[in-house]
Amino acid sequence: MFLYNQLLLNPEHRDRIDIVLVRPRNPLNIGAAARAMANFGFSHLTVVGPYAPHWQEARSAIGASALLRNAKSLEHLSEAVAGCMLVAGTGTLDHRRPAQRVVSPAEFGALVEAALANVGRVALVFGPEKHGLTRDDLSFCHVLVEIPTDSRQPSMNLGQAVAVCLYELARSASPAQQVSTPPGKPIEPGPHHPAATSGVLDLLAGVIEETMTASGYSPAGLRAANRLHLRELLRRLTLDEPDAKRILRLFRRVLWRLGRVNEVSDRGPDSH
Amino acid sequence: MFLYNQLLLNPEHRDRIDIVLVRPRNPLNIGAAARAMANFGFSHLTVVGPYAPHWQEARSAIGASALLRNAKSLEHLSEAVAGCMLVAGTGTLDHRRPAQRVVSPAEFGALVEAALANVGRVALVFGPEKHGLTRDDLSFCHVLVEIPTDSRQPSMNLGQAVAVCLYELARSASPAQQVSTPPGKPIEPGPHHPAATSGVLDLLAGVIEETMTASGYSPAGLRAANRLHLRELLRRLTLDEPDAKRILRLFRRVLWRLGRVNEVSDRGPDSH
Repeated sequence: MFLYNQLLLNPEHRDRIDIVLVRPRNPLNIGAAARAMANFGFSHLTVVGPYAPHWQEARSAIGASALLRNAKSLEHLSEAVAGCMLVAGTGTLDHRRPAQRVVSPAEFGALVEAALANVGRVALVFGPEKHGLTRDDLSFCHVLVEIPTDSRQPSMNLGQAVAVCLYELARSASPAQQVSTPPGKPIEPGPHHPAATSGVLDLLAGVIEETMTASGYSPAGLRAANRLHLRELLRRLTLDEPDAKRILRLFRRVLWRLGRVNEVSDRGPDSH
Repeated sequence: MFLYNQLLLNPEHRDRIDIVLVRPRNPLNIGAAARAMANFGFSHLTVVGPYAPHWQEARSAIGASALLRNAKSLEHLSEAVAGCMLVAGTGTLDHRRPAQRVVSPAEFGALVEAALANVGRVALVFGPEKHGLTRDDLSFCHVLVEIPTDSRQPSMNLGQAVAVCLYELARSASPAQQVSTPPGKPIEPGPHHPAATSGVLDLLAGVIEETMTASGYSPAGLRAANRLHLRELLRRLTLDEPDAKRILRLFRRVLWRLGRVNEVSDRGPDSH
C-alpha cells in the first residue's frame, strides 16, 4: 500500500462528526454520500425524513456498507443535531441572503478544528437534491458552507457536494497535531466553557417562545417567523453551556410568573 | 444571485484545461463528470476509447449538456493529450509504486498555475471505474495526482473524484491575479522556452525507439518495457520545445546513419 498523501484529521476527531442528509430522494445519491464518507474516513450518517421506499432500497442495495446499515433515520433535523455544538448547513446561495455566516469549505475546516478542540460533536447537513435546505432547516445551523461554483451552473449533485466537503474536512490538520506540547505535559484547559449543544438551544428557544406567547409579544400571525428569527438569533450568540442554562432558568421563572399573572387576570382585573 | 465564495481561476485559463476520461464504462459517471465540470466552469471534455453504446447513451441523455454534446471522442490517450504541456493522471496508489512524481490536488493546482503562465494546455486524466489508469496510460503523464483517502476504502467514485479535483483546481488563483504589474506594462517573457508538448515527446520517443531497434539495443522481448521506460524518462526530463526538437534531429541523423550501416552490413562484412 503506497499512500503518499495522507488524511490529516485524526480518527478520534473524525468520529465526532455527523453527516446529515435531509430528505434525500435518490437512493443512488444516498449510496454515493456513504461512499464518499468511507473514502474520507467518516462513519456517522443520519438521514432525516427520507422517502421510505428509497431509503429501504439504499440500505438494502447489494454492496451497501456497514455505514449505511448502521445509519440513523430520524423524523426531524432538530433531533439529528441535538447533541452537536457546531451545525453547518451546505448549499448554493442562488436567491436567498442567509441569516447565517457564510464560509468556504476551507474556512469551515478551521471552524471544525476549533470546535473539536472542545469535547463537542459537529454536524454537516446536506439538503434534498432539488431545492436544498429550507429556511426552517437552516435555522438549526450556525454557519452555511458554500462551495464556490460557476454562477451559470451553481447547483451540485448531492454525492459530489458531500465528496468535496469531506475531502476538505479530512485534510484539516486536527488541533492536537498542530499544537506541540512537551511530552507528558497535557494541554491546560482554557478559561472557556464548552459551547451549548443544539439540544439545549432548542430547549431555550421553546421556553422563550412560550414566554413570547404568554406575554402577548408574538401575535399568532407572526409566530412562525418569530420562531425562525429566534433560532437564528440563539445560534448567532454562540452561547456556552452555563450561560444557556442561566438564561433558560430566567425564562422559566418569567414564564411561571406570567402564568400566575394570567391566572390572576383570568379572575378579573386587579383590585389595585 | 448571492455568491460569497467565488471561483478564482480565471475563465481564459480554465479554457486551456482538458478533462480526459479514459475508457469510462458507466454513462451515469460520464454525466456526473460533465456536471462537475459545469459546476466549476470547465468546458473541454475528451473521452478516450469509450464503450460505444454507453457513450451514445450519455451523450443523448435527456438534459445532457452542450458540454457533453461537444465532447471529443478519441481512440488513444496520446492523441487526447498531444497538444498539452502538462499531463496529470489521477488515481489511488493501492499496490503500485509509480514512475511519476505524486502530488496532492492542492500541489497540482500550483503546478497548473505555473504551466498556464506559459501558453500551453493542461490535461487532467481519469481512468476507468474498476481499475484506474494502466501503466501504459500513466506513461503519458508528467505527474500523478492522488486524492488522500482512507486506506480501508481508498477507491473513489469517478464522478466524485472529478468533482474533488476540479474544486481544487478552480480555486487556484491564476498567475495573472497573483503577479501585480503596473497597468499598461506587460509581463516580460522569461528566458525560458515553452515546454515541449506531449505530441513532440511522442514523436521523439518514436524515433528513439526506432534507433534502439535499428542499433540492436532493444531485444524484441524487452521492447514493450523499454517503450514505457522511455516515455516516462522523456516526461521526467521536462524538455523545452527547442531542446526536444534538437534531440529529435540528432536521433533522425543517427537513424539515417544506422540505416546506411545496416545497408552496408547487409551487403556483407566491411572490407576494412
